[in-house]
Amino acid sequence: MFDEALISGNFRLVSRDNHPDNTVITVEDVVFGETEIVIIAGPCAVESAEQLITTAFYAKAAGVQLLRGGTFKLRTSPYSFQGLGEEGMKLLAQAKRETGLPVVSEVVDEESTLLAARYVDVLQIGARNMQNYVLLKRAARTGKPILLKRGMAATLEELLGAAEYILDEGNPRVILCERGIRGFSDFARNTLDLSIIPAVQEVCHLPIIVDPSHASGRRSLVAPLARAAIAAGADGIMVEVHPDPSRALSDGNQTLPLPELGTLLPQLAQIAKVVGRNLRLAPEFPYKLGIDNPCK
Amino acid sequence: MFDEALISGNFRLVSRDNHPDNTVITVEDVVFGETEIVIIAGPCAVESAEQLITTAFYAKAAGVQLLRGGTFKLRTSPYSFQGLGEEGMKLLAQAKRETGLPVVSEVVDEESTLLAARYVDVLQIGARNMQNYVLLKRAARTGKPILLKRGMAATLEELLGAAEYILDEGNPRVILCERGIRGFSDFARNTLDLSIIPAVQEVCHLPIIVDPSHASGRRSLVAPLARAAIAAGADGIMVEVHPDPSRALSDGNQTLPLPELGTLLPQLAQIAKVVGRNLRLAPEFPYKLGIDNPCK
Amino acid sequence: MFDEALISGNFRLVSRDNHPDNTVITVEDVVFGETEIVIIAGPCAVESAEQLITTAFYAKAAGVQLLRGGTFKLRTSPYSFQGLGEEGMKLLAQAKRETGLPVVSEVVDEESTLLAARYVDVLQIGARNMQNYVLLKRAARTGKPILLKRGMAATLEELLGAAEYILDEGNPRVILCERGIRGFSDFARNTLDLSIIPAVQEVCHLPIIVDPSHASGRRSLVAPLARAAIAAGADGIMVEVHPDPSRALSDGNQTLPLPELGTLLPQLAQIAKVVGRNLRLAPEFPYKLGIDNPCK
Amino acid sequence: MFDEALISGNFRLVSRDNHPDNTVITVEDVVFGETEIVIIAGPCAVESAEQLITTAFYAKAAGVQLLRGGTFKLRTSPYSFQGLGEEGMKLLAQAKRETGLPVVSEVVDEESTLLAARYVDVLQIGARNMQNYVLLKRAARTGKPILLKRGMAATLEELLGAAEYILDEGNPRVILCERGIRGFSDFARNTLDLSIIPAVQEVCHLPIIVDPSHASGRRSLVAPLARAAIAAGADGIMVEVHPDPSRALSDGNQTLPLPELGTLLPQLAQIAKVVGRNLRLAPEFPYKLGIDNPCK
Repeated sequence: MFDEALISGNFRLVSRDNHPDNTVITVEDVVFGETEIVIIAGPCAVESAEQLITTAFYAKAAGVQLLRGGTFKLRTSPYSFQGLGEEGMKLLAQAKRETGLPVVSEVVDEESTLLAARYVDVLQIGARNMQNYVLLKRAARTGKPILLKRGMAATLEELLGAAEYILDEGNPRVILCERGIRGFSDFARNTLDLSIIPAVQEVCHLPIIVDPSHASGRRSLVAPLARAAIAAGADGIMVEVHPDPSRALSDGNQTLPLPELGTLLPQLAQIAKVVGRNLRLAPEFPYKLGIDNPCK
Repeated sequence: MFDEALISGNFRLVSRDNHPDNTVITVEDVVFGETEIVIIAGPCAVESAEQLITTAFYAKAAGVQLLRGGTFKLRTSPYSFQGLGEEGMKLLAQAKRETGLPVVSEVVDEESTLLAARYVDVLQIGARNMQNYVLLKRAARTGKPILLKRGMAATLEELLGAAEYILDEGNPRVILCERGIRGFSDFARNTLDLSIIPAVQEVCHLPIIVDPSHASGRRSLVAPLARAAIAAGADGIMVEVHPDPSRALSDGNQTLPLPELGTLLPQLAQIAKVVGRNLRLAPEFPYKLGIDNPCK
Repeated sequence: MFDEALISGNFRLVSRDNHPDNTVITVEDVVFGETEIVIIAGPCAVESAEQLITTAFYAKAAGVQLLRGGTFKLRTSPYSFQGLGEEGMKLLAQAKRETGLPVVSEVVDEESTLLAARYVDVLQIGARNMQNYVLLKRAARTGKPILLKRGMAATLEELLGAAEYILDEGNPRVILCERGIRGFSDFARNTLDLSIIPAVQEVCHLPIIVDPSHASGRRSLVAPLARAAIAAGADGIMVEVHPDPSRALSDGNQTLPLPELGTLLPQLAQIAKVVGRNLRLAPEFPYKLGIDNPCK
Repeated sequence: MFDEALISGNFRLVSRDNHPDNTVITVEDVVFGETEIVIIAGPCAVESAEQLITTAFYAKAAGVQLLRGGTFKLRTSPYSFQGLGEEGMKLLAQAKRETGLPVVSEVVDEESTLLAARYVDVLQIGARNMQNYVLLKRAARTGKPILLKRGMAATLEELLGAAEYILDEGNPRVILCERGIRGFSDFARNTLDLSIIPAVQEVCHLPIIVDPSHASGRRSLVAPLARAAIAAGADGIMVEVHPDPSRALSDGNQTLPLPELGTLLPQLAQIAKVVGRNLRLAPEFPYKLGIDNPCK
């Protein structure tokens, strides 16, 4: 069990003991840490203008508030698709201009951080880099909000320690993200550890969201885990969607086809109410989307 | 990832391929596997008539449908409280007579199985015994429904294999239960693995419930995880409650005080609706319980 | 980290604090817990007189001191080979008469325990049953030495607690066995945790051996891990061998062909010397075995 | 289980299929990947000239071939000692000049990589950065040998993938290092996974060493695990030593006092012979060290 005294002592900036109120983080008109549930969605990787813009329009219509898209990808093999780089970030900026959705993308080094500071609204630190403290401090110095994903073997203490590095650099805008931990599962790629949500909320004032896509690696698990995340008190979810998951350049197996947002988000909105939260659905959604599905 | 062909081939009795419809299990008027969400609650261990009957009346008033209580306890140390044995089972039977609630208790051997067949309605196989196939077969032969808890390091394949032993013995009434797996968590005793709910439902026709109490080992995590379990599609939950958790003989740290059921169950009922399920709340609940709290 | 005070307090019978000297366990002329390294070998499952007797003669010639053979098997699927039962135990007794090697076999319930008390010298409790305390106590009452395998998710505290149950029943002759824990390995079936050897020896006076066969599930890993076990201070090893692993009814992939003992055991004997231990090799071994290989 | 075809296909540069002979890596007169066992030792962190030079002389006298010392430390808390930075690297270079021992230190970013390229002989990539592919590629481009530590939750596939990034950048001099994986141990900080040694050697031509200090986090486990590592086939070990572990600025609990090398290394040399390897001991060692112990 974690040592609460240690946390309030060693991680004084992220500790709720020293900051009883929730940290509220505003990204354009999106608000993390108040009653709003935030939905982040988008493709695993930005692949083309068509793929991204199609996804962005559809996602916005469905009620998504923040568009995600990988541009600098960390892949187990050097021969896998590594992302479009700056070109991808430019497409994200274009998608934002066309839809009004703010955008989030992962940074992996000095170069991508500089680009992200220019093109995107939220900088994501991936699970593999959660303890790359050099990167955390560099990203922090952009002043942009940081979406910090829990490492695959990170304890609560290590997650809070990573966040403390960012706050200690003068940037208090950190959104934590549970995305599954490594275990022995024979049915999911990782083990989504929802227990960390109430544990974080007990000792830390930062918002925490959940990524059920990377956690499961299996499309049929995504919607149940997204519902569970909201029920457990998460401040939002981040899901991978694609106009045609079977043709996605990465992670297609865990990616939802866009129309499934039309089923999922209204469910999340209802669960949000049960836990005293609110999820704004797009007014015309989901009724018209069956007809207007831009993916066809 | 699990091999679906292997499951439908090797575990043919539990496989949904060979039995597309959900198995429905009836215990008195409690139904597992249809739209009803089943709430099981009670003390970790039966300690006394007063403790159990008080809990049972309160639990029933709160909408609990099945009373749990440990009578033969498996403890890490031989010097810890080992349960009241037959005396405890008699108290469960008495609680049933007085409240009408059917009862569930763990069996650990021939003797406890024989007693349970006489005194209780559902036989629980604990996580430590999930692969004690001799016990599984012995319990199966009572013809009573079996609540089979997932072992702390059990894969989906092993859980289904254990259930297959029971069905192969001629007893189709098996209720699976996720109760947390062993991991590196520094904030919860075990890691509740809700992903297994949709995974089981995809390949297996048996009902599956969740025990958030043993999973977390921490009272503040129980309610969020119970809500998450229902949102993920569980057929029910099993929680530990006690009139005075601080005085419980075992597991007090993870046990809810009874009045918290009054907050939790209505939330679960609302989440149940979102996922197309139903949780019957006691009609007078929770309004009168504030006044009539039998635990005071 | 484990709490040494807790161990000496709660597990007083197994704690070295209360019993500074090593427990020495004698099985015929085999001695656990002194300087001798004990080699246990044999097939995963007893399959036939020919298979077992061939293996036993060869193993004895190679320097093996104790013959293992499964007779009551715990298998994930009820449709897998479940062992020969009493017939298998009789074959073990026959192998002992013919070779003089004492024998060890796993017990799983009252029936197999009664048979084992009659036919075998050491009763094994398998990893799946490490916390089946009813079985531990029943096996303890036979007065025979107990080979207690660590459960796949067992902590040191739980392993010592299981041993304490046996000692508390009046049987001090317990041999612990590390056999791999469950993890995320993509190259071995389980993760052999050799760190537990010095940890056990620090706080507990019981002998501890290692089973590298079940730990690895992969033949090529068995010899390196067996060498590592002796180097780490284990009191012995237990390996699966078979005259023809490709035709073994269970676990063939991890089973050594008999002649490999001829390479492995002399290596273990040399490593034993480095750590102040001794492994008696058969005098004529391994020179003649190349010629006399009974497996051909 | 890992997919050997996948490895030889996707990780063609590190795969033994495409490079049957061991890669041999020479650092001054130290050779990895032939019969020599390489001993790397030194303090967790470089703290002062006195601490480092004392350690270096003693280590050299004991037979250590490569001096380690952390200069850019990755710590869970931003308020823990972060290393001496360039000053520490200069001290390493000084220690090399005075003792002739080549030196290894961890790099964490562009700055430390540039410094390391100037001051040290081997660049270490720590476990937290194993999948920081940007850093791997940057370090690779220095042309210096890279000591690549396995991440705490890294599979074999991921470890080989990380190495492939380095080779793909044109630097074939990669030394792998097992340092313990995250698990549920209650007696060691991490779980040393020695099975990966023969697994790596089966499919990959790169040398692999073991760090028993970080794996155990407990001084009493270090020597047994070091012996086990050599017995399992490791090409070397890396241990933390300090003139006075109780005063070390980090990781004191797992650090060996220098004189223990005098007991450990001769044991390792004897085990090395058993597995067909060789460990050169300093000629006068360990006899004179009892007298000349510079730590007194």
